[in-house]
Amino acid sequence: MINRSTGKLSKTLARLFFISLMCLSSSLVFAEGSVGIDLVQAERALKFAEKEASKMNTKMNIAVVDAGANLVAFIRMDGAFIGSIDIAIKKAKTARLFDMPTDELGALSQPGGDLYNIELSNEGLITFAGGLPIHNSAGEVIGAIGVSGDTVENDKIVAQAGVDAVK
Amino acid sequence: MINRSTGKLSKTLARLFFISLMCLSSSLVFAEGSVGIDLVQAERALKFAEKEASKMNTKMNIAVVDAGANLVAFIRMDGAFIGSIDIAIKKAKTARLFDMPTDELGALSQPGGDLYNIELSNEGLITFAGGLPIHNSAGEVIGAIGVSGDTVENDKIVAQAGVDAVK
Amino acid sequence: MINRSTGKLSKTLARLFFISLMCLSSSLVFAEGSVGIDLVQAERALKFAEKEASKMNTKMNIAVVDAGANLVAFIRMDGAFIGSIDIAIKKAKTARLFDMPTDELGALSQPGGDLYNIELSNEGLITFAGGLPIHNSAGEVIGAIGVSGDTVENDKIVAQAGVDAVK
Amino acid sequence: MINRSTGKLSKTLARLFFISLMCLSSSLVFAEGSVGIDLVQAERALKFAEKEASKMNTKMNIAVVDAGANLVAFIRMDGAFIGSIDIAIKKAKTARLFDMPTDELGALSQPGGDLYNIELSNEGLITFAGGLPIHNSAGEVIGAIGVSGDTVENDKIVAQAGVDAVK
Repeated sequence: MINRSTGKLSKTLARLFFISLMCLSSSLVFAEGSVGIDLVQAERALKFAEKEASKMNTKMNIAVVDAGANLVAFIRMDGAFIGSIDIAIKKAKTARLFDMPTDELGALSQPGGDLYNIELSNEGLITFAGGLPIHNSAGEVIGAIGVSGDTVENDKIVAQAGVDAVK
Repeated sequence: MINRSTGKLSKTLARLFFISLMCLSSSLVFAEGSVGIDLVQAERALKFAEKEASKMNTKMNIAVVDAGANLVAFIRMDGAFIGSIDIAIKKAKTARLFDMPTDELGALSQPGGDLYNIELSNEGLITFAGGLPIHNSAGEVIGAIGVSGDTVENDKIVAQAGVDAVK
Repeated sequence: MINRSTGKLSKTLARLFFISLMCLSSSLVFAEGSVGIDLVQAERALKFAEKEASKMNTKMNIAVVDAGANLVAFIRMDGAFIGSIDIAIKKAKTARLFDMPTDELGALSQPGGDLYNIELSNEGLITFAGGLPIHNSAGEVIGAIGVSGDTVENDKIVAQAGVDAVK
Repeated sequence: MINRSTGKLSKTLARLFFISLMCLSSSLVFAEGSVGIDLVQAERALKFAEKEASKMNTKMNIAVVDAGANLVAFIRMDGAFIGSIDIAIKKAKTARLFDMPTDELGALSQPGGDLYNIELSNEGLITFAGGLPIHNSAGEVIGAIGVSGDTVENDKIVAQAGVDAVK
C-alpha cells in the first residue's frame, strides 16, 4: 500500500513535471517566432507607457522589441513627431543589442569616450535616453522598450513605465 | 415666418459650423504629425485583423500607416515570421504610396510590365497581396494596412478585416 | 510513516522539479544573449558541414544564425568565393526569417509568383538553395544555416550536413 | 670535406626549397580567394581569444578577416552582446583596412583630429580598441582580429591573445 500510493504520487508528480516542462519550454521558446517577450506583455508595456505619456500631457512614439531585437509592437500617439518613429525603434533595438539603458551607452560614446561613434554600427544606434532593456522575474533580458517624442528625460520616464508594467 | 427663416438660418449656420469643425479637425490632425488615420482607429484595425487571423488559425505581422505613409501602429503575433515584420510595414507603405492594393501594383511590375521593378524605388516596395489603402467615409485615403505571415490570399483577407473595422 | 516518507519524496521531487525548471529556463533563454542554438551546437554544425564540403572536394562559406536571426558562427574555407560570405550569411538569415528552406521561398518569388521580389525586403534576402532552418528535438526552430560556394545543389547538401549534426 | 660541402649545399637547397614552398603556398592561397591568413590560423586565433575571454569570465564576439579585409571566421560566445556582432567584424575590417590597431585610428578621428569622422567611410568603421592587425613571421599583415563584448581594455586583451596565437 505504501509503495503503491507513493508510486502513484511519484508517477503523478513525474507527469506534472513533464507537462510543466513542455509548457515552460513552449512559453520560453515562444511558438518558434517571437523570442523573449510575447505580444500580450509588449502591448501591456505600450499601454502603460502611453498612459504615463498622457498623464504627462505629452505625445510619444513607443516601440517594443523581443530578445532577438526584432520589433513586436509599436504605437505612435496622435500628433507625436514623425521623425521619432525611427528613433523609438532604434532606441529599443540599441537597449537590447547591448543590454543596457541607451543613455549609459551614450555616456561612453562621446568624443574622447571609450565607444566614440559606436552609433555607426548595427545600421544606426540611438544612444541618448529613452531605451531600456526589459527583464523577466529571473532577471534575464527578454526584450527592450524605446520611447521618443519629448525631452530625453521625459522619454526615459515613459520608457520606465513600460518596463514596470511587465515586471 | 420669422421663426421659419431664423430656423433655416440657424440650420445653415450650424451646418457651416460643423463643416468648419471638420476642416479644422483635419487641419489640426495634419498640423500635429499624424495625418489621416488616428491611433484609436489604427488600433481598432489591428485588433480586428488580429481576430480574423486567430479565427483562421494563423499568425500575422500587421502594420498601419497614416496618410503620410508613416507608421502608426504595429503588432507581431506570437510565432509569426520575423521576416514578415519588414514586409508588413512595406506593404502598408506601398498601399498608401500609390493608393491601391499592393497586388494591383504587383500585376504591373512583372517582367515586361509597365512598372517593371518599381519595387526598387522608395527604399523597397512590396507589391504582392496583403497591403490595402484605408478610406474614410468620404472616400479619402487616410492610411493603409499591411499584413504578412501566411499565403498572400490569407494576408489579404486579414488586411481586409482591418480595413472593414475602420469604416 | 506513510505521510512522512511520502512527504519527503514529494519534497525531493519538488526540489528536483524546481532545479530542472531553473536549468531548463537558463538553457532555453541562453544566458541572455544568444537565443536558440548555442555556440557549441553552431560550431558542431559548421564542422560537419565543412567535412561534407571537403568530402565533396569543394570550398564553402558556412554561416549559422540563432533564433533571433543573429550570427553565431561563420567560417570561410580556404579558397572559397569571397562574394559568398554575404550570401551564406543572408541564406542563414532568410531561412530563419521565414522558417523554411531558402529555395522554397525562391520558388514563390519568381516573376509571376506569389512573392515576386520578396528579396528586396529585410535589407536583402537570398532565396536560392543553401539555407535551411535548424530545429531542436521538439521540432522548434532554434536557428538556421546558410551555405554558399558551389552549385546550389551542393550548397544544399552541405547545409543539410550541418543541420543533421545538431539533431 | 666532400661530405661537409655536400651537406652545406643540400642544406642551402633545402632552405631554398622551403622558401619556394612558402612563396608558392602564399601565392596559391592568394590565387584562390582567401588572401593571407588561412582558416586553420583564423580558427586558432578564435580559439585562443575565446579561452582568454573565458579565463577573464567575459563573453565576446570575435571576428577574423584576411588580407583582403574579408571575413574568414567568427564566433559569438553564449550570452555575448548581439550588438557586438557587427562591431567585432567592423573592428577586424578597420584594423586591416588601415593596418593599425583600431584605437590608434580612433585617437586621430576625434573632433579636431586629423581624421575626424573617418568612421563614416567604408560603410562604417569602428575606431575604438579591440581591433588588431595580424602579421606573419616576416612582419607582413595577413589579416586582422576584432573583439567586442566588454570594456575596450578587455576587448583589446582578448584580441591580443588571438594575435599571439598566430605568431
